[in-house]
Amino acid sequence: MRVLGVDPGLTRCGVGVVEATGPRRVALVAHGLVTSSADDGLDQRLVRVADQLDEWLDRHAPDVVAVEQVFAQANVRTVLGTAQVAGLAMLAAARRGIPVATHTPTEVKAAVTGSGRADKAQVARMVRKILGITEEVRPVDVTDALALAVCHAWRPGGALAGARRPGSSATPAQQAWAEAERAARRGR
Amino acid sequence: MRVLGVDPGLTRCGVGVVEATGPRRVALVAHGLVTSSADDGLDQRLVRVADQLDEWLDRHAPDVVAVEQVFAQANVRTVLGTAQVAGLAMLAAARRGIPVATHTPTEVKAAVTGSGRADKAQVARMVRKILGITEEVRPVDVTDALALAVCHAWRPGGALAGARRPGSSATPAQQAWAEAERAARRGR
Repeated sequence: MRVLGVDPGLTRCGVGVVEATGPRRVALVAHGLVTSSADDGLDQRLVRVADQLDEWLDRHAPDVVAVEQVFAQANVRTVLGTAQVAGLAMLAAARRGIPVATHTPTEVKAAVTGSGRADKAQVARMVRKILGITEEVRPVDVTDALALAVCHAWRPGGALAGARRPGSSATPAQQAWAEAERAARRGR
Repeated sequence: MRVLGVDPGLTRCGVGVVEATGPRRVALVAHGLVTSSADDGLDQRLVRVADQLDEWLDRHAPDVVAVEQVFAQANVRTVLGTAQVAGLAMLAAARRGIPVATHTPTEVKAAVTGSGRADKAQVARMVRKILGITEEVRPVDVTDALALAVCHAWRPGGALAGARRPGSSATPAQQAWAEAERAARRGR
């Protein structure tokens, strides 16, 4: 199963593709940054981002697109652009018939580090370790997108957007993920 | 000049098309509601809305699309979906090469009623009067979309997204609009 992770943003949108090759096994396929310039009008920026997302979907033909869930409580100055880019990513995937899943930041952190409270540097370090990336990967939007893809690839049972709980063979990270997910669902 | 006004929303998105036939003269072309069901997943809802917006653009071939500006301070529960639909409308227009303008609710109210503080019922009443609509038009998302289109059609000089001020021949409504716009720009 090939997963495209999208960390949405209007100025910088991280994208990362991983291939799930077995239980708890993932391989890096590609990673990069989708950008638009703040000098352009919002409509032109959305076109730029949508065109680049289309290229990623065309080139890597993912089986599923995992998008970070946007919360209205987030930074007021940027949340609208972030929500709009998340919407474009979901639209582009759904129009191709590709299933879309969303994950909360807490779920993602728990999945890759075992703790829902990990900071961005810890997440980046674990993502590089999990995927065997030796060089630095910047900015964090890119490692966040890869973390999303890993998080989704590691969902117990490979379910898409279901609420299936991990079995007794769940790893500590999977258990932390499941707890974080349940907490997020309760909070919605 | 044909203007498509879009009052964005995920469950109900108002759309209205007017033709500017001369200074302060507008004629109704069409109005309606774009909808999606809360029973569907967000990705499918965005596809539904985008498909319907495409139909409106194809059928009426507007020269410009006017979208209500979304503010992060608005209702937290609905603002993300509203922002996403505004994004889809801007993307669909821009991909067709159609210019996009945004107007604040205050500008729109001032343009059609002469007061930036008018309520939705007053806006609806004035829109029906301006466009010679005798029957009731519901819900207010539809009259809000028509008000947006009228507001844009009546912009002094027909400028798109510029900040040109009305000349000395401006009507009270145009002056109120210009003041509301300047206030909105100061607040950004």
